[in-house]
Amino acid sequence: MAIKQVYMDHNATTPLHPEVIKVLSETMQVFGNPSSVHGYGRIARQYVEEARVKVAGFIGALPEEIIFVGSGSEGNNTVLSIIMCPSLHCSCERKGGSGIVTTRIEHPCILETAKCVADRGNNVTFVGVDEYGKVDMEELEASINARTGIVSVMMANNEIGTLQDIKRIANMVHKKGALLHTDAVQAVGKVPVNVKDLGVDFLTLSAHKIYGPKGVGALFVRRGIPFCPLIHGGHQEQGRRAGTENTLGIVALGKAVEMRALEMNEEGKRLRELKRVLKRGIEDAIPDVAFNGHPTDSLPTTLNASFEGAEGESILLYLDLEGIAVSTGSACASGSLDPSHVLMAIGVPVDRAHGSIRLSMGRSTTRDDVAYVLDKLPKVIRKIRDMSTVYAGRKH
Amino acid sequence: MAIKQVYMDHNATTPLHPEVIKVLSETMQVFGNPSSVHGYGRIARQYVEEARVKVAGFIGALPEEIIFVGSGSEGNNTVLSIIMCPSLHCSCERKGGSGIVTTRIEHPCILETAKCVADRGNNVTFVGVDEYGKVDMEELEASINARTGIVSVMMANNEIGTLQDIKRIANMVHKKGALLHTDAVQAVGKVPVNVKDLGVDFLTLSAHKIYGPKGVGALFVRRGIPFCPLIHGGHQEQGRRAGTENTLGIVALGKAVEMRALEMNEEGKRLRELKRVLKRGIEDAIPDVAFNGHPTDSLPTTLNASFEGAEGESILLYLDLEGIAVSTGSACASGSLDPSHVLMAIGVPVDRAHGSIRLSMGRSTTRDDVAYVLDKLPKVIRKIRDMSTVYAGRKH
Repeated sequence: MAIKQVYMDHNATTPLHPEVIKVLSETMQVFGNPSSVHGYGRIARQYVEEARVKVAGFIGALPEEIIFVGSGSEGNNTVLSIIMCPSLHCSCERKGGSGIVTTRIEHPCILETAKCVADRGNNVTFVGVDEYGKVDMEELEASINARTGIVSVMMANNEIGTLQDIKRIANMVHKKGALLHTDAVQAVGKVPVNVKDLGVDFLTLSAHKIYGPKGVGALFVRRGIPFCPLIHGGHQEQGRRAGTENTLGIVALGKAVEMRALEMNEEGKRLRELKRVLKRGIEDAIPDVAFNGHPTDSLPTTLNASFEGAEGESILLYLDLEGIAVSTGSACASGSLDPSHVLMAIGVPVDRAHGSIRLSMGRSTTRDDVAYVLDKLPKVIRKIRDMSTVYAGRKH
Repeated sequence: MAIKQVYMDHNATTPLHPEVIKVLSETMQVFGNPSSVHGYGRIARQYVEEARVKVAGFIGALPEEIIFVGSGSEGNNTVLSIIMCPSLHCSCERKGGSGIVTTRIEHPCILETAKCVADRGNNVTFVGVDEYGKVDMEELEASINARTGIVSVMMANNEIGTLQDIKRIANMVHKKGALLHTDAVQAVGKVPVNVKDLGVDFLTLSAHKIYGPKGVGALFVRRGIPFCPLIHGGHQEQGRRAGTENTLGIVALGKAVEMRALEMNEEGKRLRELKRVLKRGIEDAIPDVAFNGHPTDSLPTTLNASFEGAEGESILLYLDLEGIAVSTGSACASGSLDPSHVLMAIGVPVDRAHGSIRLSMGRSTTRDDVAYVLDKLPKVIRKIRDMSTVYAGRKH
C-alpha cells in the first residue's frame, strides 16, 4: 500500500498549478526571441508583455514598473546592489545615500548581499525585531540617516510567517528621505499586496512560491526611481536586466498570478482555519511545545513550532518516512548546523531553536492532511524524546 | 495558402528540440526544492545533478565545475564581476590582478559589464580584431600585464560567426599569469568545445541557443579557481549562485546537450555545405554584396552579408513578409540605430554596415529553405535598391 503523501513545505517551493502546466504545454512552441524584429520575435514579445500586464495588475503596479528576473534572490540582490553604482559615471545617475538599513530576519539573499555591500565600504545596519519577529520601529527609525539609500524589510518572514506593517514603514522611510524595498516573495499570492497602497519603491516576488516554475520572478521598481542593473548588456527589460527573456517562465508566472487572483482570498480563509486546527491539535497532543512568530499578524500558511528535547532535523526525517514533508527553517539554509538566524533574532534559546520545524500549507492542503500530521507528529516527537537521554531523564 | 516559413535566425534563439519538449512535459510534476532534505527535495536534487553530469560531460568538465545560471548574460556578468570582489573581506580570497582585457567584438553583456567595471575604477582594455574578426594576438599579448586579472575572448562571434583560436589564447594568457574566460554561447553545440583541451578557466554557455529553453545557462569554473558570486544568498551551486535551482530549465539543458552530442557533428557538415550553397547563390544572384567574417574559421551556421544601397532593417522586414526570419546583427542590440560594433571593429564602412543582415541556420534548416531564400532575397534586394535614389541613380 502506498504511503499517504502530505506536502507541508509550501514556503520552500510549490507544485505547478494545473493551469500553469497547461499554459506551459501550450507555449512550448513559441520560441522566438522577444527582441527579434521579425514575426517569431513579435509573437514572443506579445506573450511576454501580456504576462507583464498580469503581474503588474496583480500587485497594483504599471506594466513598465515590472522587471522580469531569474529568481527572488536575483531581484533582492539587484535592489541592494543599486547602492554600489558609481553614480558619477553610470548613466543611471543615481542620487542619495549609499547606506543600507535592513533587518536581522531577512532571507539569506538579502543578508549576504548586505554583508557584501558592507565589505565594499558601504554603511549597512541590521535592525532587530521583537519576540514575534516584528521590526523594532524605534530602532529602524534611529538607524535611517542622511547616508541611508535603501531600506529593505521583508513583508512576510519565510520561517515564522510574521507580517510587517510595510505601509507604516514606507511612510517613515520616505519621511527620512530613503527608499523602501520589500522582499515580498513569501507574501505575494498569500495575502493582498498592492504596491501603491503600501507605498514601497521596490518589491520582489518569485513564481515558484505561487505555483509557477522555478527560475523566474519579478522586481517592481516604482516609476522614476533611479535604477542600475545587476546584469548588464542587452536592452531587455528597458535596459534594466540583460539576457534573453525567459518567455516560458514569464508566461507561466503570468498564469500563476492570474490563478492567485482567483483563488487566494477563499484559500486564505480556509488555510487560516486549518492552521488554527493544526496548532491547537499540536498543543493538545504534544507537551513542551512552543510556537514561533506572531500569533495573528502572520501568513495563513505558516506554522513554526519548537519541540523541547527533539532535534528539528530528526523530526523532519522521521516525518519524511511517514510521507510528510516539512522543513527546519529555510530550504536556502538547509544543511547548515547553525540555529536559524530568525529564531535567534526573536530570542528563541539555542536549544529550542534546534528543535524547530516549519509546517507550511498551500492550495492543495486538506483537512485530511492536517489530521494525518496530527496523527503522526505526536508519535514522532514521542519516539525522538524517548531516545533523548536528556529529555527522557528529565521528564519521565 | 499559407506562406512558407523559413527561420534563419538560430543565433538569436532556437526552437525547443522535440526531445526537450518531451522531457519538459515529463518533468513538470517534479516540483521539490532541490535544497529540501525530504523526499520531494531529494528527487529534484537528483534531476539537477544528472543534468549537471550531462552538461559537464559535453564540454569535458567535471560536474563540480558547472554552475547553473539564468542566462548566458548572467554567466558572463558573473565572471567579469569577480574582478570587483573586495578580496580582503570576501571569503573567496581572490588573488591576482583586478584588470580586464577583452575584445571589441564581444557580446554587449561582456562589453557593458566591462565598461561598468571600468567605471568602478578597474583597468579595462578592449583589444582590436582584423578584417575577419580574428583577435589581434600581438595587441592582446601587449595588453595583458601584471594588473590583469581576467581576459575574456568570445569563442564564436554571434554576428559574423568568426571562431577564435582559444587554445592558443589560453596558453598566452596563462604564460602572463592571468585567467581566461570564453563566452562560448554561440560555439557550444555547433563546433566541438572541450574545456580541458582549450585550457580555459571560465566558459559560458546558454540553453536557448542549442534547442533548450530560455532562462537557463551554465558557467564552467575550473576547479580551484577563485570565484565570487554575482547573486549572493543561499548555498546553492556550492555557494556560487544563490536562488532556488531552475529544475525544469536545468533538466531541459541537460537534454539539449545530450541531443547536441548525438546530432552536432553530422549536422555541422550538412550546414557547412548549405552555407556554401547559400553564399554562392547570393554572390551569383546579387551584385554589390560583401560577406563579413572569416571565410573558413567560422560557424557552419552563420552567414553575414552586406548589400550596398539597402538598409538591413528594410531587408529584414521585406523578408519577414515573405516568411523568412533573419536579423541585422544581434537580437540583443536590435532597436538600436547605431551600426553593429562588430562590423565597425572589422573595418566595414558605416554605409555597408547598415546594409547588413545575418542569416543563421540550424538543425531544422533544409536545402529547400536555402533555395527559398535564394529565390526571395534577390527580389527583395532589387526592390529596395530600386527605391533607393542613391543606389538606383548610381547603378542604373
